[in-house]
Amino acid sequence: MFLPIFFIFSFLFSSTNAADFCVGDLNGPVGPAGYSCKKTATEDDFSFSSLLRTAGNTSNLVKAAITPAFSIQFPGVNGLGISIARLDLAVGGVIPMHTHPRASELILVMDGTLFAGFISSDNKVYSKSLNEGDIMIFPQGLLHFQINTGKTQSVAFVSFNSADPGVQILDFALFTNDLPTDIIEGTTFLDAAQIKKLKGVLGGTG
Amino acid sequence: MFLPIFFIFSFLFSSTNAADFCVGDLNGPVGPAGYSCKKTATEDDFSFSSLLRTAGNTSNLVKAAITPAFSIQFPGVNGLGISIARLDLAVGGVIPMHTHPRASELILVMDGTLFAGFISSDNKVYSKSLNEGDIMIFPQGLLHFQINTGKTQSVAFVSFNSADPGVQILDFALFTNDLPTDIIEGTTFLDAAQIKKLKGVLGGTG
Amino acid sequence: MFLPIFFIFSFLFSSTNAADFCVGDLNGPVGPAGYSCKKTATEDDFSFSSLLRTAGNTSNLVKAAITPAFSIQFPGVNGLGISIARLDLAVGGVIPMHTHPRASELILVMDGTLFAGFISSDNKVYSKSLNEGDIMIFPQGLLHFQINTGKTQSVAFVSFNSADPGVQILDFALFTNDLPTDIIEGTTFLDAAQIKKLKGVLGGTG
Amino acid sequence: MFLPIFFIFSFLFSSTNAADFCVGDLNGPVGPAGYSCKKTATEDDFSFSSLLRTAGNTSNLVKAAITPAFSIQFPGVNGLGISIARLDLAVGGVIPMHTHPRASELILVMDGTLFAGFISSDNKVYSKSLNEGDIMIFPQGLLHFQINTGKTQSVAFVSFNSADPGVQILDFALFTNDLPTDIIEGTTFLDAAQIKKLKGVLGGTG
Amino acid sequence: MFLPIFFIFSFLFSSTNAADFCVGDLNGPVGPAGYSCKKTATEDDFSFSSLLRTAGNTSNLVKAAITPAFSIQFPGVNGLGISIARLDLAVGGVIPMHTHPRASELILVMDGTLFAGFISSDNKVYSKSLNEGDIMIFPQGLLHFQINTGKTQSVAFVSFNSADPGVQILDFALFTNDLPTDIIEGTTFLDAAQIKKLKGVLGGTG
Amino acid sequence: MFLPIFFIFSFLFSSTNAADFCVGDLNGPVGPAGYSCKKTATEDDFSFSSLLRTAGNTSNLVKAAITPAFSIQFPGVNGLGISIARLDLAVGGVIPMHTHPRASELILVMDGTLFAGFISSDNKVYSKSLNEGDIMIFPQGLLHFQINTGKTQSVAFVSFNSADPGVQILDFALFTNDLPTDIIEGTTFLDAAQIKKLKGVLGGTG
Repeated sequence: MFLPIFFIFSFLFSSTNAADFCVGDLNGPVGPAGYSCKKTATEDDFSFSSLLRTAGNTSNLVKAAITPAFSIQFPGVNGLGISIARLDLAVGGVIPMHTHPRASELILVMDGTLFAGFISSDNKVYSKSLNEGDIMIFPQGLLHFQINTGKTQSVAFVSFNSADPGVQILDFALFTNDLPTDIIEGTTFLDAAQIKKLKGVLGGTG
Repeated sequence: MFLPIFFIFSFLFSSTNAADFCVGDLNGPVGPAGYSCKKTATEDDFSFSSLLRTAGNTSNLVKAAITPAFSIQFPGVNGLGISIARLDLAVGGVIPMHTHPRASELILVMDGTLFAGFISSDNKVYSKSLNEGDIMIFPQGLLHFQINTGKTQSVAFVSFNSADPGVQILDFALFTNDLPTDIIEGTTFLDAAQIKKLKGVLGGTG
Repeated sequence: MFLPIFFIFSFLFSSTNAADFCVGDLNGPVGPAGYSCKKTATEDDFSFSSLLRTAGNTSNLVKAAITPAFSIQFPGVNGLGISIARLDLAVGGVIPMHTHPRASELILVMDGTLFAGFISSDNKVYSKSLNEGDIMIFPQGLLHFQINTGKTQSVAFVSFNSADPGVQILDFALFTNDLPTDIIEGTTFLDAAQIKKLKGVLGGTG
Repeated sequence: MFLPIFFIFSFLFSSTNAADFCVGDLNGPVGPAGYSCKKTATEDDFSFSSLLRTAGNTSNLVKAAITPAFSIQFPGVNGLGISIARLDLAVGGVIPMHTHPRASELILVMDGTLFAGFISSDNKVYSKSLNEGDIMIFPQGLLHFQINTGKTQSVAFVSFNSADPGVQILDFALFTNDLPTDIIEGTTFLDAAQIKKLKGVLGGTG
Repeated sequence: MFLPIFFIFSFLFSSTNAADFCVGDLNGPVGPAGYSCKKTATEDDFSFSSLLRTAGNTSNLVKAAITPAFSIQFPGVNGLGISIARLDLAVGGVIPMHTHPRASELILVMDGTLFAGFISSDNKVYSKSLNEGDIMIFPQGLLHFQINTGKTQSVAFVSFNSADPGVQILDFALFTNDLPTDIIEGTTFLDAAQIKKLKGVLGGTG
Repeated sequence: MFLPIFFIFSFLFSSTNAADFCVGDLNGPVGPAGYSCKKTATEDDFSFSSLLRTAGNTSNLVKAAITPAFSIQFPGVNGLGISIARLDLAVGGVIPMHTHPRASELILVMDGTLFAGFISSDNKVYSKSLNEGDIMIFPQGLLHFQINTGKTQSVAFVSFNSADPGVQILDFALFTNDLPTDIIEGTTFLDAAQIKKLKGVLGGTG
């Protein structure tokens, strides 16, 4: 008696799930909107437990670590316009000046104290000392930074309105490649000695 | 000698900051893209510290609380396509079955254990038990839920790729208003007695 | 004498048609923006005559039928952000409470009388009795329904601003799968007996 | 005992309905995304019954009528990215060659027979004879037309994926204004006599 | 001592460049958002020097030439939402009445004098005489034209906010294909003799 | 006899022009999508002749000038997603390292020789020497620069796929405001002496 209901709706229901999500097939073709969709998705595709649970290794120059869950690490967000990353900052740790070319960022401080700020395109600084439970918004594409100014390890989570927001860290962009020193000098007004020093630290040549 | 640089760029720089952000003027006209922009923004407009720091009150029927930081509560995100909310769930607490009509959601569990799931438009259930540091994605517009299945208070933060994602909780949509019982009965196949019982609990009439 | 005009424009014209449309290749890779494009399109790809011409079979529990022309049924709309479906409702027929996760809907009543409504995210009901030639808008992602309250068969056409709007029918989402009864009970406040009764009707287990 | 549930959710629920919809305030400021939102919406804002119910007056040169329900006529669709119009064509009636600059169109034939077609940007014609219940898609911005080639009055409804798709009818664009005859001649290769004749019919000068 | 910084950021940095750009692979699958991305991009993919440097051949009927750098000619813009074309107009040359179905256009006059205009969807003409260094905007999808009204060769560059804006030239759309004369006559009100004359010039049949 | 055609279409045509364009009213409310629309637009609103015709003043530190035609300078592009700027570079002139937070850029070299480049988010440099008639694309949000490496004055025009792309020049962002030296030092790894020197040149304090 109740069978007809299945029959009538079956055409509709057997075919509409594709666009609910598009778990990224990292081996398939990639297009401007993201990865191709995996043909079959499972529950495990939509959650991600191995990476964000534990603190990143902050035993490094900046005493900080970024652990992203973007579409390449977490293909479940592919095509859905959202992603997240974990920030760990030891005492005195710094997430250096950087931009996200394709997303706004919303930070949530979980532990410790961060001094964070962004610079608008008319060169104003908007900064704030943030404690546990505080949030701050960094508008799309603008330079921003976070510093652990507290006395304990700090943890924060940053959300993005893109599955692949991109990260361009200023120092890495300028000093880890072979962009010639005179070009950097001419386009940033930095002294050649300063540039060479940072190239030495960060591995750049030229 | 260095003054010319200010002069040359001044026209450009004095005028481009408006679109970097659009802090919502809650008293101005509203349009399809959000609130009008405040004429002047300050550092305080971009951070939000009073609301998300402390646990919501879970002394209620569902033993849970939602504390949103959407554009109406946090006008700094207006126009930037991102927002966040805090979830508190006491032991046994439940965020009831609901949808967000205009955004995908990414949950991050901070404390405790949550059993969470969503239902796709071809009626498959994708669920997972989530612990501290786990994340899960709920694609745009689909029914989903979270339950504290652990033995301690649970806290989670949910990010959205909209400054105003909307929340439609199934039971509130059906049973808190004057939608007539026979209409609900006819469109949900629930028994009239069940409907009337829930209207009684949730304040609906008719 | 007139040949040069062909020559000059030929480079431009031989290459620009791809993006005018992207008829879906249902066997090619799928991405977040939809199906891959068929290499060659014909006149038949842009029209669709076999499915919407005749009434769907309403000899079922809800006395109603949905006949969609989404991108999977009508690949000509792939990538163009629009689609349509036909609704047939026998006397007393019901399109049950449902949402479209990725589109707004505009209904046009062709025959008969429908009582239709949607529920906003602040739980207000916006409903209307619609007759032949009437239209009504259902904003994106919100619960809505249609009931044939007239004395004759009713026909309506619903347009969507997505080539793949999705359909999530509340009862099918809750009661046709293996979502455990206690989870449904906890997240919807429905009684277990009610849930088991509907699972029995609709084919759910657990 | 049940009151707490209202209290906990009240903050969330009292404030999220604005963005569910944005019924156009035709007297308020207009922006690139559409009209400002009316402060209060009622059930009547979401349905539209007076205009599409009856046939347009086809006692005119083209034996046809267009009756739109765009955002200016039907402010309920403002910001929701969808709209509709009714086409009436007497025997031999014609909807002249035209484009919609901001939307794709999906036509549904309700009565009679239409010969319809569009021209792609590489100058190919995709045309079809459509009968009752047939649909056809016209991709965004391309020239298209409809002709009643049957022996009875024809009625069709056209949906758009914009609340304000625009309509640019070729003859009206060219021949109802003061665009000088020599400019039209030079940019369309039409003979001056032909241009002047059509300006005479359609009211153009110059 | 400085090695840790490379290690910590290496996971992040080795994987985020894909979405910075998506140089089109003209042989790969195409989707609604554009071409698939080439696996490896080089410096040469982002610049384009051979085509726009020199004047197009204006020895033709319209004394004009269009040289596009859309995604098919310049795959570096694929997915980036921008493109450009060069216009060359000999004295008296004309870019005939046309539309771009998917983009607004911004013209910049480099040499000479152009009379340019567009027609809005309420049939108003907005035209202007433009000299070297002048710019003009043509809103998306509207009919527009350019005429060299000066005494010297004219050069202009037109930018589009789409990597594949499309070009539909009115005369080519109507008179270069097999659209039957009576259909053109009925949908444009042009005389059959005029239509046949232009079909003769432009190569159309029927 | 021909009057009916005006009557029938008049309702449609009197009302659809608003959304063709939205010339910015710089004194009206601003929203996330741009300025409010002027109530009445004239031909002069769509062209812009005073600013781009002549070379900017390059008698300054960087021997370069940027002359933008963004929505605030050229309100005709408001809401249309496109804009342009003129670059003038004297011999040895430099457009310093900068980003556009909300747009991709397409440069067209009109005179002279430029060495231009961008840095991807995985720190690769894509650079090119560009001559007259060459174009180059700079993907959204990435650091890029232009240098006049030729022996003559250079002129270029840069198009953007936003009416308000924003410009964030690295040195101005870091050294023209009151961002404390130790914060800059900590987030850029630059030496304090270098920072203070550039603050001195560019007017920054702290």
